[in-house]
Amino acid sequence: MATVGIGIIGFGVVGGGVVDVLAKDRAVIAARTGADLELRAVVSLPPYQRTDVLGASLGKDLAAITNDPAIRIVLLLVGGTTFAKDMCLACLKAGKHVVTSNKALIAEHGDALFAVAKEHKVAIAFEAAVAGGIPIIGALRDGLAANRIESITGILNGTCNFILTMMEQKQWSYQQALAEAQRLGYAEADPTLDVNGTDTAHKLAILSRIAFGIRVPLAALRIEGIQNVTAQDMASAARLRSRIKLLAMATQRPEGLELHVAPTLVPLDHPLAAVHMNYNGVYVVGSNSGPQLYTGQGAGALPTASAVLSDVIDVALGRAEQTFGSFGFVHHPTPPSFLPEAEERTASYARFVSPDKPGILAGITQILSSKGISIRSIFQGEADAQGQASIELVTHPARGGDFLDAVAEIDRKQLTAAPTVCYRRL
Amino acid sequence: MATVGIGIIGFGVVGGGVVDVLAKDRAVIAARTGADLELRAVVSLPPYQRTDVLGASLGKDLAAITNDPAIRIVLLLVGGTTFAKDMCLACLKAGKHVVTSNKALIAEHGDALFAVAKEHKVAIAFEAAVAGGIPIIGALRDGLAANRIESITGILNGTCNFILTMMEQKQWSYQQALAEAQRLGYAEADPTLDVNGTDTAHKLAILSRIAFGIRVPLAALRIEGIQNVTAQDMASAARLRSRIKLLAMATQRPEGLELHVAPTLVPLDHPLAAVHMNYNGVYVVGSNSGPQLYTGQGAGALPTASAVLSDVIDVALGRAEQTFGSFGFVHHPTPPSFLPEAEERTASYARFVSPDKPGILAGITQILSSKGISIRSIFQGEADAQGQASIELVTHPARGGDFLDAVAEIDRKQLTAAPTVCYRRL
Repeated sequence: MATVGIGIIGFGVVGGGVVDVLAKDRAVIAARTGADLELRAVVSLPPYQRTDVLGASLGKDLAAITNDPAIRIVLLLVGGTTFAKDMCLACLKAGKHVVTSNKALIAEHGDALFAVAKEHKVAIAFEAAVAGGIPIIGALRDGLAANRIESITGILNGTCNFILTMMEQKQWSYQQALAEAQRLGYAEADPTLDVNGTDTAHKLAILSRIAFGIRVPLAALRIEGIQNVTAQDMASAARLRSRIKLLAMATQRPEGLELHVAPTLVPLDHPLAAVHMNYNGVYVVGSNSGPQLYTGQGAGALPTASAVLSDVIDVALGRAEQTFGSFGFVHHPTPPSFLPEAEERTASYARFVSPDKPGILAGITQILSSKGISIRSIFQGEADAQGQASIELVTHPARGGDFLDAVAEIDRKQLTAAPTVCYRRL
Repeated sequence: MATVGIGIIGFGVVGGGVVDVLAKDRAVIAARTGADLELRAVVSLPPYQRTDVLGASLGKDLAAITNDPAIRIVLLLVGGTTFAKDMCLACLKAGKHVVTSNKALIAEHGDALFAVAKEHKVAIAFEAAVAGGIPIIGALRDGLAANRIESITGILNGTCNFILTMMEQKQWSYQQALAEAQRLGYAEADPTLDVNGTDTAHKLAILSRIAFGIRVPLAALRIEGIQNVTAQDMASAARLRSRIKLLAMATQRPEGLELHVAPTLVPLDHPLAAVHMNYNGVYVVGSNSGPQLYTGQGAGALPTASAVLSDVIDVALGRAEQTFGSFGFVHHPTPPSFLPEAEERTASYARFVSPDKPGILAGITQILSSKGISIRSIFQGEADAQGQASIELVTHPARGGDFLDAVAEIDRKQLTAAPTVCYRRL
């Protein structure tokens, strides 16, 4: 068994997790997989939270990695896309394989980096970039290699899922739940990229690339976050035997690929409804495999280290090079067409706040019917002190544009007294 | 891209599924993975259900495969262990890689076959042997390579899960549900190996080998099937907010490995409780990844073909050879100790049928208490016309031997009027 030298760039939570796993289990991993991993250098900007690096060097100079011929694999564990991209390019050009957990880097600069990697005959691996410890990249790329992927529906951001779970279980407001997530370390001080759906979108772009063999410009993705989800929305969902989850969805339709990130009503009997707290879940439908569900912890030091090291082992054994060299990251025979929102097919939820007077319900249902939208269930409670009643309904799947047109017409005809709240429903 | 010749042995349901997938998607698979798979020979005993084999030869002579130098990979898709083993050995000795869905073959003869494969520098791959289309072997072996696996809990037999689901949902007897499974093709005419737990045990032995790096003699497994599960048991489970599932469990304890297959009460809030019908589910706890769930279709022509072809692609790309050569199928540093049933730790369910007279409940609870067993919940309904009442209880986790001793003592002291029904509870 040959010893394989590795270097780490970025010594934060994930880097620390990798060191902890190697400290405890280097021999176990070697016995199991045939890959004996020797950490030789950690490159990170001081000050250092910790200095135990298993006898490796610790400093800020990248040359400790690029000039060490014994280091074959670099673990790029920093966030952002500017510094990370420079580091990645430097390592690839020095002939090092790169394993990274940086989803933004792969989603935004994957093409450029893959090209440089191929030129230098090294591999880039990024299992840790999506869904933390769940080996979903490997499953889509290798395990389901003999399928056409029909759809991917994912809960891909643990921060959002924690917040939504807290809102549901404790009847908290978004702000209360966010504060609790920050207190427990599930949300960062600036949670913007998590809660506004950007992080989820990066992950969806990566999964779509693997699953559908296409480039996914982030501009092709409709992205909606969870900041506007209210306690009332959660209660409405519960009454409809559903939960609100931030879903990333990629669906192959005959007319094109439908891609979006949005808070969505998930019926309780759908497997994704049971994915709680900081967990991630990915529901994949393959043409031969049928529907499958993968769930697990999507972030955190050790789950992410688990994914990073699975890639490192794959590279060390020579498998990743083989995969990276032959896998068609862009193999779709025709340039894909991305469906505009109007062309999506989706069931929807709407809550109309209306004056409690004759003709309102008839007006709303007539407009929906005129657009060809069929109502699956409807609920109206007593009017409140202001004489306003909430009418909540769920539609059968319909063309998204028709539904939005109907809602706009209902609002325009003054059948409502406040802006209508709409969600997709799975 | 090089074309890779493949041959199939056994042209039943799975073989037909493989041909169907290649007929439809050979080009898609090639574009995606870099592996262009050419079917060159199908070897099977006549009469043939179908003869469309994509231009390959179809006959009963194995030489069509072993003598064809262009065939690098053999898909061994027959059941049983005698003929299958001979075929497997002949192919390995002819320098062919073997991909198989035959769980009994790998569970019972894995060691011998692996040794011959290594000698002839070829690989054996068997993703399809466990959980059909779910890539669970790849997940345990590669995706979770940097974990110590702490436990595996699996619903691994779709026939049993279908029968139990029908019993629960329709309040059917075991016989009624079995008949329906046979009518729908989910159970064979002779369902013995499925319903008595043998098939599940074979799969557990294979998963344990991958996860724990040990040989698992089938004799080390305690195996209980579902034949004795009654409609009354299902109703009792439902009252306790649980479902009965046939579980395969492997749990690493400080004292040794606990391995068994048994019908078990699964609380509704456990993710495996939501695995219904003919689906499989595997719940894995890794030391770094934490708990993960994988679900999907565990059998059928296309899901199994999906798994078989993922292995074929892995072999075609050279990855499987790499994995097979380096993976420590037996790497556990010390000979493992398998825990006897008495040493298991498990929560339990018991239903005592007792005469409705003073002192019974006191007697039962006193005996349980004297063995150190703590009761989690208890339920007693009205006595029936014969003056007998059912006392049902669930214990906290305890030493299995202590629980069984207590039940034996309760029965011996004539606190019961019929044999006590016991199940493990997750």
